[in-house]
Amino acid sequence: MFTGPLQALVDELGRLPGIGPKSAQRIAFHLLKVAPEDAMRLAEAIVDVKERITLCPRCFNVAEGDLCAICSDDRRDGTMLCVVEDPRDIVAVEKTQEFRGRYHVLHGALNPLEGVGPDQLRVKELLGRLDDEAITEIILCTNPNLEGEATAMYLARLLKPLGLSVTRIASGLPVGGDLEYADELTLGRALEGRREVDA
Amino acid sequence: MFTGPLQALVDELGRLPGIGPKSAQRIAFHLLKVAPEDAMRLAEAIVDVKERITLCPRCFNVAEGDLCAICSDDRRDGTMLCVVEDPRDIVAVEKTQEFRGRYHVLHGALNPLEGVGPDQLRVKELLGRLDDEAITEIILCTNPNLEGEATAMYLARLLKPLGLSVTRIASGLPVGGDLEYADELTLGRALEGRREVDA
Repeated sequence: MFTGPLQALVDELGRLPGIGPKSAQRIAFHLLKVAPEDAMRLAEAIVDVKERITLCPRCFNVAEGDLCAICSDDRRDGTMLCVVEDPRDIVAVEKTQEFRGRYHVLHGALNPLEGVGPDQLRVKELLGRLDDEAITEIILCTNPNLEGEATAMYLARLLKPLGLSVTRIASGLPVGGDLEYADELTLGRALEGRREVDA
Repeated sequence: MFTGPLQALVDELGRLPGIGPKSAQRIAFHLLKVAPEDAMRLAEAIVDVKERITLCPRCFNVAEGDLCAICSDDRRDGTMLCVVEDPRDIVAVEKTQEFRGRYHVLHGALNPLEGVGPDQLRVKELLGRLDDEAITEIILCTNPNLEGEATAMYLARLLKPLGLSVTRIASGLPVGGDLEYADELTLGRALEGRREVDA
């Protein structure tokens, strides 16, 4: 449709998640129009990420070089471990400022239909850490959906017999939410997870 | 939020049109995950576009090197000229297969509030082409919005006195549309532009 290199760029942009053909065209023409140094900064950022970002050999968070920023921070509580599906989930948990322990990234959730079993996740590495580190509590922080729940259940059965405290994050109504608009599953979980009021 | 190069990539992606912070994260993590050669292809496509794509010196369409593919195609009808706002509009017109003439890209539309006057568009170059080429009909194919209509009106006033046939694309109901859902302006234009039925 477009002349050589421009079409190549539209095609490459169209392969990115969430970018349709029209967005790809729009972005390609935007890049065509901006100052060369602005476009080059993007190209270099892509190259940089591929060359410099690695996975932390301990927790499998994104890292630059060896251990990730959290694993190499001595002030973190080494007895608590929060298990998440994705490195982005670490950012979400960190934002709460409620957790001072360390993390373990599974890089996915159990999904037998798509061929994702325990061997495709970083489960073996998680068990290895229990030998090496002084972990006493594990918080299962996978997504509250079918795959995430199945993964949490699987890990709980694996970890409980080892004498660890294994907890799951609470499901319930989001803060600022409205009972009227809550789906019945969430409201059911909120009732199930009710707690004594401190008064 | 993320480690150095990853945050830099998220920031650069977030500067692209239509990419919000969440999309930028999603794309950055996608690029982190794909094979290095796939990410490099995107980076190279960006560099390539900036280095190899130029504007056609005659019609200001995107081109590789000298004249664009349409200007250098001798089979095109040199007497008809379709004036558009943007190179992407050429693709839209070409897809109709209804036009075999050449194009002229204004690179924008009149918009006094944003400081876009005739001098900011390729109007002078359009007038120059009338001297050099055997153009007899000009189709004003700017967008049917406020700025596009103003630009078409301005060009019509400029070009009519030169003895050319100057036409404007029709406004009306889109094919497959529904009278009930048409806005009154479009329906008004459709009535205004009504044509004798061949029967």
